[in-house]
Amino acid sequence: MDEKLLEEESLKAEILIEALPYIRYFSGKYVVVKYGGSAMLDSDLQKNVIRDVALLKLIGMKPIIVHGGGKEISKWVKLSGKEPEFYNGLRVTDKETMEIAEMVLFKVNQELVAMMAQQGIKAVGLSGKDAEMMKVEKKEVPGKDLGYVGKVKEVNTDLLEALIEDDFVPVISPIGLGEEYAGYNINADDTACAIASALNAEKLVFLTDIEGVFIDPEDKSTLISEMDLTQAHEFVDKGVVGGGMLPKLKNCIEAIENGVARVHILDGRLDHCLLLEFLTQKGIGTAILKDPIF
Amino acid sequence: MDEKLLEEESLKAEILIEALPYIRYFSGKYVVVKYGGSAMLDSDLQKNVIRDVALLKLIGMKPIIVHGGGKEISKWVKLSGKEPEFYNGLRVTDKETMEIAEMVLFKVNQELVAMMAQQGIKAVGLSGKDAEMMKVEKKEVPGKDLGYVGKVKEVNTDLLEALIEDDFVPVISPIGLGEEYAGYNINADDTACAIASALNAEKLVFLTDIEGVFIDPEDKSTLISEMDLTQAHEFVDKGVVGGGMLPKLKNCIEAIENGVARVHILDGRLDHCLLLEFLTQKGIGTAILKDPIF
Amino acid sequence: MDEKLLEEESLKAEILIEALPYIRYFSGKYVVVKYGGSAMLDSDLQKNVIRDVALLKLIGMKPIIVHGGGKEISKWVKLSGKEPEFYNGLRVTDKETMEIAEMVLFKVNQELVAMMAQQGIKAVGLSGKDAEMMKVEKKEVPGKDLGYVGKVKEVNTDLLEALIEDDFVPVISPIGLGEEYAGYNINADDTACAIASALNAEKLVFLTDIEGVFIDPEDKSTLISEMDLTQAHEFVDKGVVGGGMLPKLKNCIEAIENGVARVHILDGRLDHCLLLEFLTQKGIGTAILKDPIF
Amino acid sequence: MDEKLLEEESLKAEILIEALPYIRYFSGKYVVVKYGGSAMLDSDLQKNVIRDVALLKLIGMKPIIVHGGGKEISKWVKLSGKEPEFYNGLRVTDKETMEIAEMVLFKVNQELVAMMAQQGIKAVGLSGKDAEMMKVEKKEVPGKDLGYVGKVKEVNTDLLEALIEDDFVPVISPIGLGEEYAGYNINADDTACAIASALNAEKLVFLTDIEGVFIDPEDKSTLISEMDLTQAHEFVDKGVVGGGMLPKLKNCIEAIENGVARVHILDGRLDHCLLLEFLTQKGIGTAILKDPIF
Amino acid sequence: MDEKLLEEESLKAEILIEALPYIRYFSGKYVVVKYGGSAMLDSDLQKNVIRDVALLKLIGMKPIIVHGGGKEISKWVKLSGKEPEFYNGLRVTDKETMEIAEMVLFKVNQELVAMMAQQGIKAVGLSGKDAEMMKVEKKEVPGKDLGYVGKVKEVNTDLLEALIEDDFVPVISPIGLGEEYAGYNINADDTACAIASALNAEKLVFLTDIEGVFIDPEDKSTLISEMDLTQAHEFVDKGVVGGGMLPKLKNCIEAIENGVARVHILDGRLDHCLLLEFLTQKGIGTAILKDPIF
Amino acid sequence: MDEKLLEEESLKAEILIEALPYIRYFSGKYVVVKYGGSAMLDSDLQKNVIRDVALLKLIGMKPIIVHGGGKEISKWVKLSGKEPEFYNGLRVTDKETMEIAEMVLFKVNQELVAMMAQQGIKAVGLSGKDAEMMKVEKKEVPGKDLGYVGKVKEVNTDLLEALIEDDFVPVISPIGLGEEYAGYNINADDTACAIASALNAEKLVFLTDIEGVFIDPEDKSTLISEMDLTQAHEFVDKGVVGGGMLPKLKNCIEAIENGVARVHILDGRLDHCLLLEFLTQKGIGTAILKDPIF
Repeated sequence: MDEKLLEEESLKAEILIEALPYIRYFSGKYVVVKYGGSAMLDSDLQKNVIRDVALLKLIGMKPIIVHGGGKEISKWVKLSGKEPEFYNGLRVTDKETMEIAEMVLFKVNQELVAMMAQQGIKAVGLSGKDAEMMKVEKKEVPGKDLGYVGKVKEVNTDLLEALIEDDFVPVISPIGLGEEYAGYNINADDTACAIASALNAEKLVFLTDIEGVFIDPEDKSTLISEMDLTQAHEFVDKGVVGGGMLPKLKNCIEAIENGVARVHILDGRLDHCLLLEFLTQKGIGTAILKDPIF
Repeated sequence: MDEKLLEEESLKAEILIEALPYIRYFSGKYVVVKYGGSAMLDSDLQKNVIRDVALLKLIGMKPIIVHGGGKEISKWVKLSGKEPEFYNGLRVTDKETMEIAEMVLFKVNQELVAMMAQQGIKAVGLSGKDAEMMKVEKKEVPGKDLGYVGKVKEVNTDLLEALIEDDFVPVISPIGLGEEYAGYNINADDTACAIASALNAEKLVFLTDIEGVFIDPEDKSTLISEMDLTQAHEFVDKGVVGGGMLPKLKNCIEAIENGVARVHILDGRLDHCLLLEFLTQKGIGTAILKDPIF
Repeated sequence: MDEKLLEEESLKAEILIEALPYIRYFSGKYVVVKYGGSAMLDSDLQKNVIRDVALLKLIGMKPIIVHGGGKEISKWVKLSGKEPEFYNGLRVTDKETMEIAEMVLFKVNQELVAMMAQQGIKAVGLSGKDAEMMKVEKKEVPGKDLGYVGKVKEVNTDLLEALIEDDFVPVISPIGLGEEYAGYNINADDTACAIASALNAEKLVFLTDIEGVFIDPEDKSTLISEMDLTQAHEFVDKGVVGGGMLPKLKNCIEAIENGVARVHILDGRLDHCLLLEFLTQKGIGTAILKDPIF
Repeated sequence: MDEKLLEEESLKAEILIEALPYIRYFSGKYVVVKYGGSAMLDSDLQKNVIRDVALLKLIGMKPIIVHGGGKEISKWVKLSGKEPEFYNGLRVTDKETMEIAEMVLFKVNQELVAMMAQQGIKAVGLSGKDAEMMKVEKKEVPGKDLGYVGKVKEVNTDLLEALIEDDFVPVISPIGLGEEYAGYNINADDTACAIASALNAEKLVFLTDIEGVFIDPEDKSTLISEMDLTQAHEFVDKGVVGGGMLPKLKNCIEAIENGVARVHILDGRLDHCLLLEFLTQKGIGTAILKDPIF
Repeated sequence: MDEKLLEEESLKAEILIEALPYIRYFSGKYVVVKYGGSAMLDSDLQKNVIRDVALLKLIGMKPIIVHGGGKEISKWVKLSGKEPEFYNGLRVTDKETMEIAEMVLFKVNQELVAMMAQQGIKAVGLSGKDAEMMKVEKKEVPGKDLGYVGKVKEVNTDLLEALIEDDFVPVISPIGLGEEYAGYNINADDTACAIASALNAEKLVFLTDIEGVFIDPEDKSTLISEMDLTQAHEFVDKGVVGGGMLPKLKNCIEAIENGVARVHILDGRLDHCLLLEFLTQKGIGTAILKDPIF
Repeated sequence: MDEKLLEEESLKAEILIEALPYIRYFSGKYVVVKYGGSAMLDSDLQKNVIRDVALLKLIGMKPIIVHGGGKEISKWVKLSGKEPEFYNGLRVTDKETMEIAEMVLFKVNQELVAMMAQQGIKAVGLSGKDAEMMKVEKKEVPGKDLGYVGKVKEVNTDLLEALIEDDFVPVISPIGLGEEYAGYNINADDTACAIASALNAEKLVFLTDIEGVFIDPEDKSTLISEMDLTQAHEFVDKGVVGGGMLPKLKNCIEAIENGVARVHILDGRLDHCLLLEFLTQKGIGTAILKDPIF
């Protein structure tokens, strides 16, 4: 074998071996991936993300996907002759809007399921209504009736565990079952957080449109690679963190406090970000960890 | 206890006891219910059908619901600015129409799931895409490209069996996974027939808008209560059967020939038709039976 | 379908649906039925009771039958040339009498087993000797040696649970294993109470010869439909309850205090009293409930 | 340790070691013991037999006891004021006689169960009625209606296997379930033979009142220690075998032809005959073996 | 059957029956046998010990053998050109000596495994390295570096339990896994003690070269047959016990204090000592018991 | 993230993704690795091989290691004062030589087990004696008594399957159980072949000292990358294959004909050859495949 080939082979082996302790560590553990934003709009990126999830499954992890559907919903609301309405960033959701939201979310859901199938993975699309998996209560905000917007009250993991036990991968729409058995819209980040907490997941990953948490979003060198719970609380309390990251960071804190071991904020636009985060030494994005960092 | 009360009680007991052998017989058996047409439009009827399915589940049967969604799809196609197109009774389904069809079917699906929840039953909404449950091939008709209209090629019952084993009730949308992992519209009757065959179901029930199979649809007295396979073939061959019952009757024959023991055509508009068909001596509608009638 | 038929069908459905929540609630739960007295003497009544037990089994409950044998024992004792002797209502049981008692009880036991077989139920006749299921100690009463009369000291439910797990229905004779491995006669009500307590049964039903507990047995309008533990204690303490109901009421209290959720005193002479009690809204007889009544 | 003690110990070890290959061979196998005749009348013998069965159970075999009750039945029939009647050695059994037979057999059955308990073995008394274990048809003999005398038509081993699986030892009365769910008397040898055949038992042992099969019952030296199927047929065909052994030998042949590997005729009056037969080199009594003897 | 034969048979039965309660008691329980010293050198004795272990296995116990290898190791060390070195009775073990020790121990181990095979028992040879079963730390003694001599730090019973569950008999060499994954020599008595403790064994038996614990080793009449924990501590504290029994007695105490119920010191040179100790009334050697002796 | 980093990450992802279909394909399958020759002498190479096996285990395969011990055996034979003797390349093995061979093989075996432990893998060292896993017969060669040299007669995989089921990795010495329960030396390649055949392994890999099968061993360009069974037979028949590869090639053919799907001859001196062969597109060495190559 010539020199160059040998070098190449040696590099391959090195990378596979670097992955070894991670494969060992995560084997058999629940990992919840919140998938949304721009990463969902580009079909090449989508393919990469899905392939990564498939790989995680194949090497023994138990992935659960939670997806959003934001921009498409507005498009269909308009098509139906309505003007989308927001209040403090929350979609005002009357009965018709809710109906459209559910339909659009399922379209997205089934696209993901079909893409998983292409990767040889048996995915099963679910909403929080299925087997009464997520029960919600109406989200109350002062001064405005948001309609069918809910926050998670209770997660029943029986269905998820049964499916995962039989080697299926759940793909979940952020819809909950509320009063009088009506469907309610839930924030997808909150959904992922609630599911990860209920499963005591090892990892919760938010695939977003930015590279991680920055102290100054304008200055890429201020990226925070890792923080523990104390530090995360500090960032939130001091309001240091910019770029709309505050609610997401609060979600991370909540997940950690509810039993999730690690939460990650990753840039979903980066090729194979999941694979690299899970299987290589140098993690990417921002990690919030349960145990203090030494 | 006074006379009248005693009589009433005695009647109750009598009815419960009549149900005994049927409960015994069907316990643990698969029953596929195709639910569609007008019976799905009236919300009171819907509640009754769902309650009946819940009762069948509670007394030990393993129900699977397959639903249609016909009229709503056209409504949403129009909303999106298109004119629904049909060819020989089959919907011409381009990509946009298919997208709308999926969305609408899921809306219907999730409504049924929520109604099941109200009855204390853990239902799980599925399409043929989930876990690649139903694979289809494109339906070819001479002289016209129907687009995304499929016919079932293969049913994988792993997901269904896993869910039913864990006491969930599957509610299935008539969508299949076709070439290049695209979704295809399938006729709901065909879907129910394929699922029942794959599961070797004990019963397949078509809830329809008419009271059963009539020799002369104008003359109610020509209702056929029961027929065996030979008789069913005769009816089809002679073309005796009227009222658009021909394709449904062919479906019944196919299901029987594929291992289903009994197929029923019931009037879904009749209150609690399922309960009465399953649990009382005098069945209603038309039954096609595997074994010859003595 | 004509008017009258429709009405009839509708009534049937109504009754089946009324049974729904009860079927759901009792599914998989232990129900102990003490069967004795006149209800056992009339062969039509017997058939009805057995059919009811079979129905309860078929819809998912786990029934256990405990039977008595009173009058027949005396008949055979006399046949053997002895005069039956009682002391304060308790049978004075010497060795020969005990031998006859066991034989007669088994005759009764096997008749019930055969009747269950006729209903398609796999019943298994047992005594407390089998697998040392019930250990007793000699019942001591001041001033008289009652001989082989025992009271339950310990119930081992292994055999019962193994049989029930495999879908058999135990039919139990009130005989226990006492000192030196001799058989002892036990009061059938006490036996049922001990078994129900050991199994933490959901229901214990005494099929008796009267319609329930009356404050004044002469006045049918004084029937007590329901009482909770506090009330039951009051009735006993004040000695209000008449008609020989006192010991039975004490049994009920003991069962409730040992983990049984509901105890019923029913008139076994009423057709299908079990079915009506278990599956209809308006219970019959007297119920003593663990949890206070609101 | 002194000489004599050493010798004694050495003898003990030798005997235990002789038992080794037999323990190994029979471990986990079904052995049916038909227990009847004089061996059942002497209470010391009874204790020995029961202790032997208990030992067989403890070292891993799966014993099933089938007992008779002959002489006691006649005693009780007389007590009830009837004269026992026989026809060609078969008890003419009218309804009352049958009732008494069942009662007496259960008395015997429960005595055995209690004796097993004393040996620490969880025995469960059964009749062929329990769980419809033995179905019989009426035994027809020319010229006489024998009444409730049956021959085995079908054995359902579900109950036996469930109990044995859970480490219980079945003790079976020779009563079957006949037409119209009535109890029928069965010959105890036939019962043991039918049960052993249905279970494909490794051994079927008849504990009798004689030392084995003799060519000349008057001459002890003509005892046949072993025979194979061919030889057994010869003995029967030539009518060589005396002493009322013919029907028993026919039973042996039938059992072997139905899958039982070894059948033994032992003298139940010999102390610990079971133990010695199962665990020592020099078998006792007469053995009929499936495979030819070399 | 003649007199003498009968007597012989009766003796056999008696001995088998004496074994009954012991077989019952020990069934399914772990028994650890430390096998070493002279008992291992004589091939007839070896055969007897192995046969006894096989018998214990066959009648339902779960034996584990721990063996030593003392004298052979020195032989091979010399062969390799080294002089065996001891310090306070402990072998000074440099790297080469350790290598030889492992090799010799495995030779011994595999001889035992082959002998078990001859008895029809599936034995599996193991060291503490296998599946990291025994982790050790270096044994420190003042004034001398003993080299690769370890003491047990941790026993992982997963492999043992898996093998025993599948009916294999583990045969264990006293080698542990120490720092830097090197093999360490462990005292075989300590090894047996650690394994028995980790398994909460019912019995731990030391097969030695003497008849038991004597107060005065010169006076056979001072053999102590049984002692409880308090007495054992007294013997150790007072230094009464002679003949090099002190460390072994300390081992016994440690095992009892770690959950083993009975520890025995037996003379392995006595034929079938295991069998006689386990299955006869009059135990041999010295027993140390958890619970006080009354 | 800067350009160079991105490129590096992208390469990592690419390599991990290339491994995906192989991980999927081999998951849950048996792979037997014959490990011997020079690859075993260099401790760095050894570490790499073991790490590779550990990685294969972690990603779901079921590896079994078979090792040799060649050169070390001669060393110890000499140490013991004997001159190693060979006949036609086979070691003449008298009783003493066999003893040494076993001891040396176990030394090697336990070194591998300890190295596996370092990689977090629970390895269990075995010989063919354990649980009578490999039975051999004496290898007969004309004109010479080779002594304790055996060839495999029968492989019992019970122990292997039990251990693998419980997640242990077997490491096997090439020793078999022969006549009179004596140990026999077996060729390690033959051992690996027999084990792989008995398990119907997916892969059998021979780690050797050369790069694969060459038509002309002097000319590296004549390496045969892949051959099917027909071609392999041709090579053997024509005697084309050089460099001592003939017996190994015959082994490969035998394995394939006994149910192994793929056999590989790899250069064990190449870093991470196992990993690269299993997880990258471009296999290395020579592969012999069951199914014809298209």
